Order: sequence, then structure tokens, then C-alpha cells
Amino acid sequence: MKSPTSIPRRHMLAGSAAALGTLGLASWTTGAHAQAAAAKPLPAYVDWKDAKALIVHSSNTMETRRSAFGTSVLTPTDQLYVRNNLPPPDASILDNRDAWTISIEGVKSPRTFSLGELKTMGLETVATVLQCSGNGRGFFPSKPSGTQWTVGAAGCVFWSGVPVRAVVAALGGAVDGAVYLTGTGGEKLPDGVDPLTVLVERSVPIEALGDAILAWELNGEPIPLAHGGPLRLIAPGYQGVNNIKYIKRLALTPQQSQARIMTNSYRLSPPGTKSGPDQRSVWEIVVKSWINGPLSEQGPLKAGMTQIHGVAFAGTQPVQGVEVSVDGGATWSRAQLIGPDLGRFAWRQFVLPVRLAAGTHVLASRATDAAGHTQPAEREENIRGYNNNSWRDHAVTVTVA
Amino acid sequence: MKSPTSIPRRHMLAGSAAALGTLGLASWTTGAHAQAAAAKPLPAYVDWKDAKALIVHSSNTMETRRSAFGTSVLTPTDQLYVRNNLPPPDASILDNRDAWTISIEGVKSPRTFSLGELKTMGLETVATVLQCSGNGRGFFPSKPSGTQWTVGAAGCVFWSGVPVRAVVAALGGAVDGAVYLTGTGGEKLPDGVDPLTVLVERSVPIEALGDAILAWELNGEPIPLAHGGPLRLIAPGYQGVNNIKYIKRLALTPQQSQARIMTNSYRLSPPGTKSGPDQRSVWEIVVKSWINGPLSEQGPLKAGMTQIHGVAFAGTQPVQGVEVSVDGGATWSRAQLIGPDLGRFAWRQFVLPVRLAAGTHVLASRATDAAGHTQPAEREENIRGYNNNSWRDHAVTVTVA
Repeated sequence: MKSPTSIPRRHMLAGSAAALGTLGLASWTTGAHAQAAAAKPLPAYVDWKDAKALIVHSSNTMETRRSAFGTSVLTPTDQLYVRNNLPPPDASILDNRDAWTISIEGVKSPRTFSLGELKTMGLETVATVLQCSGNGRGFFPSKPSGTQWTVGAAGCVFWSGVPVRAVVAALGGAVDGAVYLTGTGGEKLPDGVDPLTVLVERSVPIEALGDAILAWELNGEPIPLAHGGPLRLIAPGYQGVNNIKYIKRLALTPQQSQARIMTNSYRLSPPGTKSGPDQRSVWEIVVKSWINGPLSEQGPLKAGMTQIHGVAFAGTQPVQGVEVSVDGGATWSRAQLIGPDLGRFAWRQFVLPVRLAAGTHVLASRATDAAGHTQPAEREENIRGYNNNSWRDHAVTVTVA
Repeated sequence: MKSPTSIPRRHMLAGSAAALGTLGLASWTTGAHAQAAAAKPLPAYVDWKDAKALIVHSSNTMETRRSAFGTSVLTPTDQLYVRNNLPPPDASILDNRDAWTISIEGVKSPRTFSLGELKTMGLETVATVLQCSGNGRGFFPSKPSGTQWTVGAAGCVFWSGVPVRAVVAALGGAVDGAVYLTGTGGEKLPDGVDPLTVLVERSVPIEALGDAILAWELNGEPIPLAHGGPLRLIAPGYQGVNNIKYIKRLALTPQQSQARIMTNSYRLSPPGTKSGPDQRSVWEIVVKSWINGPLSEQGPLKAGMTQIHGVAFAGTQPVQGVEVSVDGGATWSRAQLIGPDLGRFAWRQFVLPVRLAAGTHVLASRATDAAGHTQPAEREENIRGYNNNSWRDHAVTVTVA
């Protein structure tokens, strides 16, 4: 979206890293890297995004600025992060959305449906946290390879489509022995390489089927190309990579996909090990929260009352509560959850009014889910930097005048 | 937002009424008027809106196309209708949002707050239906003066701000005898006229105070100028005009505002009467629903299964249920409510799977709220065309091949 907010501000921000520096916006992530990233223009396929809200890491990776997250629960599509494992298909696949086809396999009566046909088979709308499993990688001191996301490779959005269970039921149910739901993306594969090394194909436990939808709408509009339109598998509560874009095949399978993105990538491999199929896969989102305000880059903070706010989520579990600390985790106070509860796959906004004296304060938040899991102080170390939910890593330091 | 969907389609639509006609999009509202309206470009202050989703009636009045409403519950800001009683103030009022001031009166300790100060006093997020009370005026055979809205002068959006009750409590509570909550807009008034004839100032019963917020955020972003930013009074469940944009004064008053927009306009005046303070004011939204799909302009409809979907809401009451008819109201079936329940001020999406044979069908929906009010067959006639919730008026005719 072109900014519906302050035009002068937009113009100031559109320019250069220097302009960002003037506004103090370059300071909240790590120095030179952030400035270089901010200077990159939006790629053409996402030129409708809100440039001032995003940090462009590369043509396929953009994150939402921490300071851009509001308090309205949802993340507007134009501020939502982008992360594509391969370049998106040609935009012409959106010319006739209803003509897109998907093959349904591993059911009693396998067949291919057009999107137009899927639209007659059921309808559900679900709010989910969409999060790249590498969100928070930028906080790993080990500097794992991959995009150095801080908090912004995540958003809370609405999806609308047909429940997968309705599609499977219409085809007679799953074949015997199926224990995974396997989705295959429709990206064009580069020539001259073994397809399995690049194919975007992921399996999730078949338990995910009950909540999964084949979605054609995001936040009230047909899904944009950058986010997997015309058709995307949404596995609510599962990390982003499991939500297959441009989905062309959905199969109930006895084994996990043999694509490298399944067998070797997105595995929680401890330091000193090699990533491979014996390690745990990146599946369900783990309990997590962070503070989105006040932040130094949102303007000078004066002594007195302020409201600490942020978001909390827990994969497939509802958030039970959030605690906030203004002293780096020495003491904690219970925050209030505000706004509509969009369901267990969505995030909750939390707020805590506090009085801050002049000086420096380390603000932290710590979520607990309904199953009793509490966000840990320390990240689980792993060689690729996945699933960072350390409250310490996500703390922010503010200076009060 | 520039369209995040199909670029070729956007380009086709951007041009002319003729292009719209080619796509069959001009047919869903009344002929020549619709084509003329569609040809108007977006005014500069809303040039970030999604042109293909809107019908531009005038520089201050734009409605969402019925075919643009999705099934994701929320209405994206770039598709949200626009209706301003006066031209919006200069965009420079957004240069420093936190410096905007509002005077709070009719409380024990009246005073002025900056928006920056309000942001320290409380935080709430609420989803509301925002609807112009003239929505549906275009269905009145009496052709009342005013914008000929059909269904699109409404949307369901998130607002974030401080609860009015928190602000009032901080100032010692209401003065004795206060029975109205009166908001005054910050629009620049034209010279040479009695201010009361143009001032945007409305009163609502003080009961609205419990749910009201002073909002600075809409759908996750600072409120755009077109929608009342930097600060807007949100009176959840009340028709749009009561949600004062650019609010500069909020008062708890013993009497209703003496502005003409309160005393004479927005009154439910029966045919043959004169609009005036003795008639009922346009306050709470009345129970209503309509169908957003299938529609003829969404493409050819083939015999077989389809899913009828739409939205239902009831002001300050939750929606209890929705019935759908495929025979113009002769028989009714219970629809399913889908998606997250965003609270009693939001709308619900409903869906009913039906099998339609070849031929012409009149599709209608009828909502009932938790207090037992059911959407009537006939509109309540009134000379200005307010509060149309007739299910008959909102029915759509589809032809199945």
C-alpha cells in the first residue's frame, strides 16, 4: 500500500539509509547491516508493500520493522514479511485464479481439482500467526547462515479457504498408513539440478489436517503472488515453511517428503551435529512474545507513565498469560491481554501500564501457553538458528529522559 | 494499496467505464450512474486506495464494491468506504500526530490532552462495523437525496486507542446531569456561514461511553487522514456519523449538540414529515446482513454446488443467526457462521452450501440478533433514506447456466 499515513514522513523514508539514520530508525537493529538493508528498494513483485514498514534483506526476504507493528492484532498485508525459498512463479498464474489446479493424493479417490471447484466444497476463515522459523536468528551470537531476522519475520493474518478435511472427506478419506500431510509448491525449478535439492515440499504430522485449509484469500483479498496466491496450504500453528505456497499437490503420505528442504533443512540440529533427517523438524511454533513499544526509535521517552505493549502466541495453543519485566527479568508483572481473541492460532496483544523513571531500562516479556509452557530465558542452540523464543534475546533497552 | 493481486486485471480496470463494462462489472448497480461513478479517479488524499475495489461517487464519498468484499471478516483499509461530511483537514495535521490535542469537558476536572498523553492512559483494541447510516439508500424507490449507496458504505475494521471511560475516570468522572457524549470534529469550517450549520458535532447517549474509544490506529496502522486520523472517536455499534473524525473536543453534556448535523440531519423522519429534533436520531446500527457471493459479476455460475456467503451484524448486539433463501424469501435455511468471532460490534461471515439448478435465482439473507430482532422484509421508510436493513432490498439475482 502506498502509505495512508503521513505523506511527508513517507517521502523522508523512501530515500536512503542516511535519511533513516537522521530519524533514528537505523539504530534498532545492528548498525551497518541494517542501513544497507534499508537502502534496498522493494522488488517489483512486492512494489505495493509499505516500504517504510519493511527492512529489505534480499529480493526474497523482507521483514516488518519492530516499530511498525501496531496494537490492532492483525498485520496489514502490505506490512507482512516476505520469505520465499525460490523466486515466485510468473505473475501470470494469477490471470485466472480459478483455473489453478491441485492434485489430491493419498486418499481413496485421488483427483485433481481446480480452485474454482474447491470454492464450492467448503469455506472457513482462520486467523494465524505466520512466522518464519528463522525469526530471531539475528539474535544468535553464533551467527548461523541465513537471513538475520530479528522479530519481524512474523505477522498475524486472516486466511480464507476450504478446510482440508472437507476435501479429504469428499475423496473418501485417507489411505491406510498415511501419517503425514505433504504439500508441494508450484515454483518453477531451476534447470540442471536434482529437483529434490530445490523442490519446496514439506510434510507435517497428519494431526495438522484437522485445522489446515487450502486458502485463496489473505486479509480480505485474493492472496498476492508474494504470499503464495492463488492457492496456499495453511497449517495453523506451524512455522511458515510448512505453509506451502502455490500449492499444486497435497498428499497424505506414509513417509516424509524426500526433498532436501524436508530431509536436511529446517532441522533443529544441536551445535556440533550435522543437519539431517534424524534431527527434529521445524514444525509447530513455540511459545513466544516480544515488546513492540515503547521503543527508542518511536521517539523520545519522558519519565512518567507509559504503556508497554507487544504480541504473544504459542503455535497450536492459546496464550494463557504474559508477564512483563522492566528490569531485565529480575522481577515480573502480569500484563493484560487486550482486543479480540482471534483463536488459538492467532497472537494476542498485551499491555502493561508502568511508571518509568529517568534512566535506562531493559524491557522484557515472557508468555505462557494454556499447556503450561513458558517462554524460556535462553534460546535452544541449533546450527541454523531456528525457533528462537528466548525472552532475553527479545528484550529491548529504552532510555528515559 | 496498489493491487497485490493480478496486475493485468488491475491495469484493465484502471482505465475507463468502458473497460468495466467489458468485464461486466458495471452491471451490478444502476446503469449509467454506476458507469459515470466508476470513471471518476480517486482523489489525491485517498490515492493509496484500491481503485478496483471502490465506486467513486464524489471526492468525499466512495463505496466498496459488493464483489470486493471477501470472506476474511476484516475489511482492508484500502478497500474501506470513505464518507466525509466536510473535506478533510490539511494533511499536515499528521506531521506530528502525538501533538494533536483534544479538550475533554463535562468532567469534574476538564483539561486538554495531547495524543501523546492519551497514549499513556490506557489501551484497547476493538473490532467494529463502521457503516454510513445512508448505506442502502440506493434501494429506496423514493430516491432520497444523498449518496446512492448500495451495500458498500460499510466495513469491519480494528481500532486501537484509549477507552473513553479511562480518560473520564482520570478527570474525576462526569459532571452531574450529563446524559450525552458529544464529540466535535476538527474540520476547517468554510467562511461566511453560521458554524452550527456545518460543524461536525454529534451526541450519542452516555451509555455509549462504556465501549467508546479515542482511536489512533486503524487495522494496524496510524489512522489515515481520510478515516479521521490522527484521532477519532469510535462509538462501537453506532452508525458512522457518530464516530467523529479529527476529534478536538469530547464533552459529557446535558443536552444534544445544537449543530445542524445533530438537530436536523440524520433523523428518521417518516414520509410527509419535516426532519427535525423531534424525530429519532440515527444512532445504533440496526440488525442487517447481505450476500457478497455468488454474484453475477464474479463470473459465470454453473449448475451444481455453490456457497452463498455474506456478512451479518447488529449494532451493539451479537448476531444470533442468519437464514438464507434461494427463492426470494419463500423458504429459508439456516446458514453457518464461520471464522473468528471478533466481538459483538463486528460482523460475522456466514456461509450456506446450496445446489443451484440452471435458471434464475433470487438469493436473500436475514439476520437475527441475540436480543431477538430479525432483519425485516421491508425498509422503514424515511425521507433521507437512513437505516435500510430490508432483506428484500439487499437480495441479489443470479443466473445459473
